[in-house]
Order: sequence, then C-alpha cells, then structure tokens
Amino acid sequence: MSQKAVSALRALLGETHVIASPSDMAPHLIDWRKRHTGTAMCIAYPQHAQQVSQVLTYCRANGIRVFPQGGNTSVCGGSVPAMDGRNIILSLAKMNRIVEVNAGNNSMTVEAGCVLADLQQAASDVDRLFPLSLGAEGSCQIGGNLATNAGGTNVVRFGNTRDLVLGLEVVLPDGRVWNGLRTLRKNNSGYDLKHLFIGSEGTLGVITAATLKLFPKPKSVATALLGFDTAQAAVEQGIRLQGMFPGELVGLELISRSEFEISIRHGHHLRNPFEQATPAWMVLVELASPEAGTAINDRLTEVLEAEFERGAIVDVVVAASEQHRHDLWRIRHNVTEANGREGMGLTHDIAVPTYLIPTFLTRAATALEARYPDATPVVVGHMGDGNLHYIAMFSHEFWATVVDKPSFQHELSHVLYDIAAELDGTFSAEHGIGALHVEEMSKYKDDVEVEIMRQIKRLFDLDDMMNPGRVLPS
Amino acid sequence: MSQKAVSALRALLGETHVIASPSDMAPHLIDWRKRHTGTAMCIAYPQHAQQVSQVLTYCRANGIRVFPQGGNTSVCGGSVPAMDGRNIILSLAKMNRIVEVNAGNNSMTVEAGCVLADLQQAASDVDRLFPLSLGAEGSCQIGGNLATNAGGTNVVRFGNTRDLVLGLEVVLPDGRVWNGLRTLRKNNSGYDLKHLFIGSEGTLGVITAATLKLFPKPKSVATALLGFDTAQAAVEQGIRLQGMFPGELVGLELISRSEFEISIRHGHHLRNPFEQATPAWMVLVELASPEAGTAINDRLTEVLEAEFERGAIVDVVVAASEQHRHDLWRIRHNVTEANGREGMGLTHDIAVPTYLIPTFLTRAATALEARYPDATPVVVGHMGDGNLHYIAMFSHEFWATVVDKPSFQHELSHVLYDIAAELDGTFSAEHGIGALHVEEMSKYKDDVEVEIMRQIKRLFDLDDMMNPGRVLPS
Repeated sequence: MSQKAVSALRALLGETHVIASPSDMAPHLIDWRKRHTGTAMCIAYPQHAQQVSQVLTYCRANGIRVFPQGGNTSVCGGSVPAMDGRNIILSLAKMNRIVEVNAGNNSMTVEAGCVLADLQQAASDVDRLFPLSLGAEGSCQIGGNLATNAGGTNVVRFGNTRDLVLGLEVVLPDGRVWNGLRTLRKNNSGYDLKHLFIGSEGTLGVITAATLKLFPKPKSVATALLGFDTAQAAVEQGIRLQGMFPGELVGLELISRSEFEISIRHGHHLRNPFEQATPAWMVLVELASPEAGTAINDRLTEVLEAEFERGAIVDVVVAASEQHRHDLWRIRHNVTEANGREGMGLTHDIAVPTYLIPTFLTRAATALEARYPDATPVVVGHMGDGNLHYIAMFSHEFWATVVDKPSFQHELSHVLYDIAAELDGTFSAEHGIGALHVEEMSKYKDDVEVEIMRQIKRLFDLDDMMNPGRVLPS
Repeated sequence: MSQKAVSALRALLGETHVIASPSDMAPHLIDWRKRHTGTAMCIAYPQHAQQVSQVLTYCRANGIRVFPQGGNTSVCGGSVPAMDGRNIILSLAKMNRIVEVNAGNNSMTVEAGCVLADLQQAASDVDRLFPLSLGAEGSCQIGGNLATNAGGTNVVRFGNTRDLVLGLEVVLPDGRVWNGLRTLRKNNSGYDLKHLFIGSEGTLGVITAATLKLFPKPKSVATALLGFDTAQAAVEQGIRLQGMFPGELVGLELISRSEFEISIRHGHHLRNPFEQATPAWMVLVELASPEAGTAINDRLTEVLEAEFERGAIVDVVVAASEQHRHDLWRIRHNVTEANGREGMGLTHDIAVPTYLIPTFLTRAATALEARYPDATPVVVGHMGDGNLHYIAMFSHEFWATVVDKPSFQHELSHVLYDIAAELDGTFSAEHGIGALHVEEMSKYKDDVEVEIMRQIKRLFDLDDMMNPGRVLPS
C-alpha cells in the first residue's frame, strides 16, 4: 500500500523527487530539539505549485495525510508528521527560487523553500532590508515562517511575518491553486485571504510562494546594554525609549541576570561587559537610521546619559564599535545553547501587554517559589512586543529525580499559562501551536473563536488531510 | 408584516431605539453623494453587542436582511440598503463609548459607533496619536472604517486600518458573539480571525468594538510642496524620500496641475503658493518627528535644497509656519468639493505598484484622449501607496449631452480599470466594493480567489442575510 503511493508520487514528480529510504528520511522525522518524532511513507519534493496541487489531489483521493515541512525548525512539533496513520512529508525545500527582487518597488517574490538568510542577503544585495530575523534564520524556510507567522527580534519595529507580506500563492487541499501574488500596498477588493493562511500552520493548504515587503537598508546602527535594579524600571525605560525613537527603535530585548550569567558562563569567549556588579535586569536596545555616520549613536548616548543621571538606569554600556555591538548581541543570541548546557530548562513563549510584564514576572516567581522551589526563573524576551521566553531552570541532578516528567512539565507550564491568561496574555506568542499546544487551544481560547476556527478548517479541509492533529484537535 | 418586525425589534431594544418614520429614516436611505438609495422597514439602534446578537437572531429567524450602517460616508454604496427586499438598517451610532484609553500600553478599546475624529482626540488627550486620517473623519465611524479597511493620508507610514487593530468584537449572523478584544502585540495561537472581518464590509457579521494601536504623538512636523516637470520625476523623488525618511515620512500625496488649479479656483481664500509657473506635477510631503523643535524641518529643507540643486525638483515650497502648512494641506483637502464645482468628474480609486504610476498615467491619458477627447485627466492620490484617485473631468455642458450616462461611465471606467489590471493593479484601492464594484469583482479578480470568498460567505451567512448584494454577487 505504501509502495503503491510512493510509485504514484514518483510518477507525478519524477524518481529522484520522492525519497522513501528510512535513513534518508530520518532527519525529517524528528524535530531539532529531539522531542517530537513521526512516521511517513515518503518525502515528496515538488518543483512548482502545479506539482503541489497534483500531490494533494492524489493524497486526497487516496486517504493519505500530508505534513508540509520547511526547514524543520519548529519548537512546537509543528514540522514533523504524526506517529500513526498513512502520512507523507511534503517538503518545499526544492522550491527555493527567488523569482524577483524589485528594489524600486521595495518588494521581492520568492518560493516557499527559500532559506530566510538567503532572502536577507538578496535584499541586502540591492541595498534593501528584509527585516525578519530570528535564531534559526540560517536553516528555516520562508514558507515555514509564513505558515507560523514567525516573530523574532525586529518585530518591535517591523511587525510579525504577516506584516511583511504583500501577496501569497497557496495550493488548497482540493488541489486548487490560488495565485494571490501581488505587490500592491492597497487593495480593498474583497476578503483579505492571505491573513487566513499566514499563521495557519499548513492546516488549510500549502503556501508555495510569497511577495514580501522590503525596506531601506539602515546605514547606521546604535546599540546599548542597559542595567536596572527592577523589572519595573526596565519595562518603564523600554516604553520610554519606544516613545522617543518610534521609527528607529528596531530591537528591545529583556534579559534577567540569571539568563545573562548562564549565557556568559557557557559562551565561547563571551565576557561580562559591565564593570560594576551585573544588574538584576538588562535591556538590549538597538536603533537603526537611514543616515550614515554617528548621529544616531550620539542621540542615543545623549538620551541614555540623561536617563542615567536621573537614576532611571543603573548602568549603561554603549557599543563603541561594530565588534563591540556584535559581542553584546552574542550574549543574547547564545541563550538557547547556553540554557541547554546549564540544566533542564522548561521554556514558555508567553506574551502579556508590555506594561504588565513586571506583574507577570512577580506572580510567576512567587508561584514557582511556592510550588517548585528547585526552579530558577530565567527570562529573556522581546520586551517591546510583551513577549517573554520564560524558563523554569532545573539542575540536571534534580531533573533526574523527577519520575513523571511529562506531567511535571505540563503542570508547571499551566501554572505560568494561567498567570498569563489572568493578565489577558497568551500561552503562545510567536512559536505557534504545532502538536505541542493543541490542548491549550481548548483550555485558554475563547470557545466561539475555536469553533470558528474549526468551521474554517472543515471548509477547506473536510477530510482533515492537511497537517492533522496540529493547531486544532482532530 | 413590516409592523410586526418593528414591534418585535422595539420589544428587544426599547421603543425609542427603533425608528420607522419615513422622514427620520430618509437621510439613512441615501448615500452622501446622492447616488445610491435603498429601502428599509426601520432603523435599529442596539446599545451593546448582546442586543446586536438579538437583532440578528430575530432577523435570521424571520427572513429579514440586515444592512449595518456607521457614519454613512461610503462612496461605493456600501452603507445604504438595497431597493428591494425586507430590509432593516442596523445602526451602530449609539454604541459610541470609548471603553478604555491606555497610554502606557499604547492601545484603546472603543465601540464601533465612535466617530473617527473623537478617537483621534481621545488619543491626543493622552499625548498619543491614532493615525487613521481621512476626509470624512468628522462623521465616519470606526466600525465603518474597520468594515472597509479604510485608507487615507497616513497609510504610507502607519498602514491601512487593519494594521492599526489589535483585537475585535464581532457578532456573527447566527447571533454568536466573538470577544476577540485584546491588546497583545504577538499571539500566534490559531487562525487570525480579525483580518477576515476587517474589510469584509459587514457581509460576514457586525464588528461591534475594537482594540486599536496608539503611537507616540509627533512633537514636530515638516511639510513641503514640491514641483516637477513630469510624473516620472515626481514618483522617483517620492521613492527617494521614502528611502531617506522611512520612519518619519507620514504623507506623500501626488497632485496634477489640473487638480491643483481646480482646487485653487474653487477654494475659499486658497492661493497658489508657487511664485513661478505652476509645475505640471506636485508632491505634498510631510515628515513627523517625536522630537520638538526645528530639526526635522532643517533636515527636510537641506535634502530638498540638494535635490533642487541637482535638478530633480523644479520648485520647492517649504511650510514656514503652522498656518502655512495648513494652507498647503487645504489645497489637497479641498479637491473633492472643488471637483464637484468644476464639472462632472468620473472618479476612480485605482492602485498600481508605485513605480508604475507614470506608466499608468501615460496609458490612461492616451486612452482618454483617443476615446474621450472631452475629458480632462485630473489626478490626486496617495502616491506612497501607489493609490491614485484618477478623475476624468467633463464640463457640465458636455455631460448634459451624454444620453446613457450609466453606460458611458461604465465603459470609461473599464478602460481605466483594464489599464490598472495590465499593471497588476486594482480597481479599488481604499474605497472598497460596496454595491458599486460587485461586477468588477467578477471581471478582474482571480476566479479561485472569488470562489474562496463565496465559500467563506456561505460558511458564515448561508442565508445571505448580512449586507446582501454587497462585495460578492448574491
């Protein structure tokens, strides 16, 4: 039965564009954090939208479930198939052409399999910026970024992935191809379908190409690391800076002392830039300007000196060179790897309204201390978006003593999600739902909202063929 | 039958919240341009979402069609009911509470019936900016702005209405109330439903409240009127300025000499600010800065002097005072009224990719000259968004000789829409579809896209009860 499907798909796509050997498939059947695994009859590599359409049509007629995969960098089990069922992986990796880069129109049209870093480079080559930037940019694909509405460090200025999209091409589960690729900034002619597919995580169809917005490439950047005694002071200062530099502030990251020390402890040649004691809370701020020269650095420095003088900030390190700037960002970018070396970190991708971050942090720390005294709160996040990666860090020794690890993790997570929910927040700010958070969708989302989502899912995919078990319960 | 419905709605909403007298209803049964008229049994004024739900439930059970109405400022016949059928107008006018203004969170939650200018003022009162700005702002309501994804003069910096929305409350045709009001900047938990309702023009449900984004209030503004010999030079300069001031450029309007002269001819105390001959094309540019003082004006002046020196611009008027700035904008804002006095202007709200504006203008002028030699091309538009209000102006004398005016207008419009379509443009950039452009939806939109829209319409409103005949053919 499996061999029949493989043969049929090879007839559609060509012999070499369908792989079925267990060893070749293995890296695609497990996520990069090694927490989610699945099974598939084969991996199909279509070359263009029409082939995607043919694959979906065949699978629909034959009761085969389709799991689209880009760079397989999901942290929510969104990019690997389920363990049961007759599954294939639909890889977009060979649809990786940059169709057009139009600097004059500040747009580019690209296929879903393009690696994010390649798109950043293509924009840079014509003196433009494609602002989406995140840890996995060297291997994640734009199709996955679109499917999950990826976030990252530039959201505070340029928005999430959906805000960077002018048009989409989508293949629907029934094989229809919607060509919605366009470069218009304004087009009020009917329902805006692109936003329905962006962030739907491959459950409504397959995004095969997109037209994206480009922006002027900044000609100068100013970066500083600020220290604070309290999270309240850090957040208030961040909000002030957003008000002072609304068009120029491109990064605003919050880092707790615990996270900072872990990153430096496990970092290659990373050193603490503070001359005095490491502050309790840090904010990494970055401004970008279309003007070359030091003006932006001078203006940031002037503002920070004044804020320091009035006692709002307890320590300030302004990057004095590109190397210095790079070193400050390395402390931030090293956290995922460093946390892995430090111990067992249970990570949460929550968001609350920005001004409620201090309230969340206080309540979360109190709850952890009461119920999980062995946990150390470790915090890093995109403060300007109200998005915290909140990690309950345990030593490897402690973690080894936990008998039922899934239950332990589930209960702890829901303690934190409950607090986020009380503050009108969310349990998934930028990572999406995948297979991991399906239960939370039922628990925390408005009932009417979930029911509307189910109706839309049934409208496009009555057979539950596309990425079943992800986003919404089957 | 009609009396029974009126009585039933009065029982739900209270005697005084349902009006049925022809004289009271009259202003709501004709659009402000006096081109679209309709009939209704009554106008219902719910006070809150639960009453909207009750009205929709009653109407659905009794085969009554519901036409939501805000400020009745649609230019596409989107805000008045149909001529036939058992109709009611659902007015949001009495749901006009500003629920919360949260300066610290840069957000405000408001009911659908709030007048746009009141929301701008509420933001300003807490030192914030709500950037949506358009001609009808003194009477249009935010619910209508949301339903139509309204544009305006600030889109080049802040986006369309949909880009200003954090959350929505929507009553569905079956009476369910979706409370999607939230203030989060990031929330990747399932399909993004708000974008489906924004711009759906009341055909999928009734938007009853919204949470909107606020921005820092600018502390200084710089405004200039630039003159060019050709549209090509004007557009190239506009694109250059967008690249130079990406975070600060908040207005970029194109005006043809014909439009400029009409505005001044019919304006109260408007005078031509150019000392030399009026240029063939003009661009009104405005920058806004969070810093007080003259720095932004100095930087704009410096750039414009350099551009003038290199011959890119043939004349420059920089606003020297707030009064001067106001006078320049009055020339722009006076065009609708002035065009009405000048003659019969057939207006089109097209968009093309910005860099193709000169191509559109050349092709359109050539086509008009060949087929409509009595027409004068009159152009004003939001150049930064590629959005032109392209007017074929005829003298009243000529217009009186046109026998079949609707056919004449239809044919002329499709000449222009065809040209926009050839350039990957649209026949409706910011005004929406309403009753006016339903035919163009079939002619110019992708078939798959229209079919998906129909499926979504049927999903939410199988009975075609909500705003029937608008957006999609019945």
